[in-house]
Amino acid sequence: MTKKGKLIGIGVGPGDTELLTLKAAKVLKSVPVVFSPKSAKEKESIALSIVRPILEERKDYKRLMLVEPIFPMIEDKEELERIWDSASEMIAQYLNSGRDVAFITLGDPSIFSTYSYVQRRLIDRYEIETIPGITSFTACAATRNKALVEQNNILTVVPKIDDRLEEVLEYSDAVVLMKASRNTAELESTIEAKNRPKEIYSVQNCTRENEKVIEGFSNEKPYLTTTIIKFDD
Amino acid sequence: MTKKGKLIGIGVGPGDTELLTLKAAKVLKSVPVVFSPKSAKEKESIALSIVRPILEERKDYKRLMLVEPIFPMIEDKEELERIWDSASEMIAQYLNSGRDVAFITLGDPSIFSTYSYVQRRLIDRYEIETIPGITSFTACAATRNKALVEQNNILTVVPKIDDRLEEVLEYSDAVVLMKASRNTAELESTIEAKNRPKEIYSVQNCTRENEKVIEGFSNEKPYLTTTIIKFDD
Repeated sequence: MTKKGKLIGIGVGPGDTELLTLKAAKVLKSVPVVFSPKSAKEKESIALSIVRPILEERKDYKRLMLVEPIFPMIEDKEELERIWDSASEMIAQYLNSGRDVAFITLGDPSIFSTYSYVQRRLIDRYEIETIPGITSFTACAATRNKALVEQNNILTVVPKIDDRLEEVLEYSDAVVLMKASRNTAELESTIEAKNRPKEIYSVQNCTRENEKVIEGFSNEKPYLTTTIIKFDD
Repeated sequence: MTKKGKLIGIGVGPGDTELLTLKAAKVLKSVPVVFSPKSAKEKESIALSIVRPILEERKDYKRLMLVEPIFPMIEDKEELERIWDSASEMIAQYLNSGRDVAFITLGDPSIFSTYSYVQRRLIDRYEIETIPGITSFTACAATRNKALVEQNNILTVVPKIDDRLEEVLEYSDAVVLMKASRNTAELESTIEAKNRPKEIYSVQNCTRENEKVIEGFSNEKPYLTTTIIKFDD
């Protein structure tokens, strides 16, 4: 019987290829199969664009199996479950054939990552190694050259604030809005109106060539926009 | 006039040298001065032990200036201010001589890092570049092979919970206790008693040779202990 392959979940960081870890780069230089989900047929994923320079250095680049299944950004939960079932089975087929598979994901695999859907489905059947990555919010703070949290501060990280907004703004010392492109004007007004001294800034395309830091909320919001609210009291 | 050097704050990640970023490794292979604060005279810092294999590969290793000022872990705020003033001035002297200085720090430089004290003091006088690092909590989740947060979850990261504990346990979906070695038994009982279904686990020395994952809170608590509380409701 063929020994099953190993699934390796790789966080590729926020955008700059140099923010890959040594460990991630090592795997990407030798793994036979790379899985890189993308949201539309036309363009490659951001995660793939980050690792491409590493892959292209490979002498066996032409033999590398690069699999780019399309995962539309939809809200329908049942449909999403079906899509992730099918992606996981596709990965399982490669693993069954004895090949290791790297699944690349933007930022870190444990924080709001689609990798977690695959990880959960395959964890009982295959060996899985997860390699952490640089999260966008620490990269944004590095670009800003200012600490996110110090001493006894509380840091809160949210994809998009729901009805817990009031509590989060009350008890946190720093709040990261991960997917700021989904912010509503109402949400932003509520945050601005919060009666605590604070600094708000947004970073677009952090660590990428077109990186841009904006005071306050960002009017135009590319997909890769993170907003940070730092309370000063 | 000599061109001033640049300060480069480097997050060296949680423990495994391979979790350094390509960018951090590149700087560490050529920078003339490395600053690595340590807490006691006897032993080198954990951050230094992480980067040592990279430094030792350097052909000019013998000429590298490795500066290890002692920063005792004390609570006295005025004394701490004085210590950080003096550390910053020491760094400034190297920068004034035209040398770049790398300041290494465990995990990420923007999250509960002593680097922020130096960064704040020197930001108006020198060029500073901050290189983000892998934070311990995403490394712990990777070791556990389970996502920290998904979808609309709220992640809360705290060094040691103060009187905001009740609220944090109420609205968060995942809570990271960064410095679990400082937990009191009372704090742990309060968390365990919280009336929400949850999973608690602790990771000691994450990604290091003596890494250990423990269900619940950890009885013995080495300095590098992180506890994660993941609510399931």
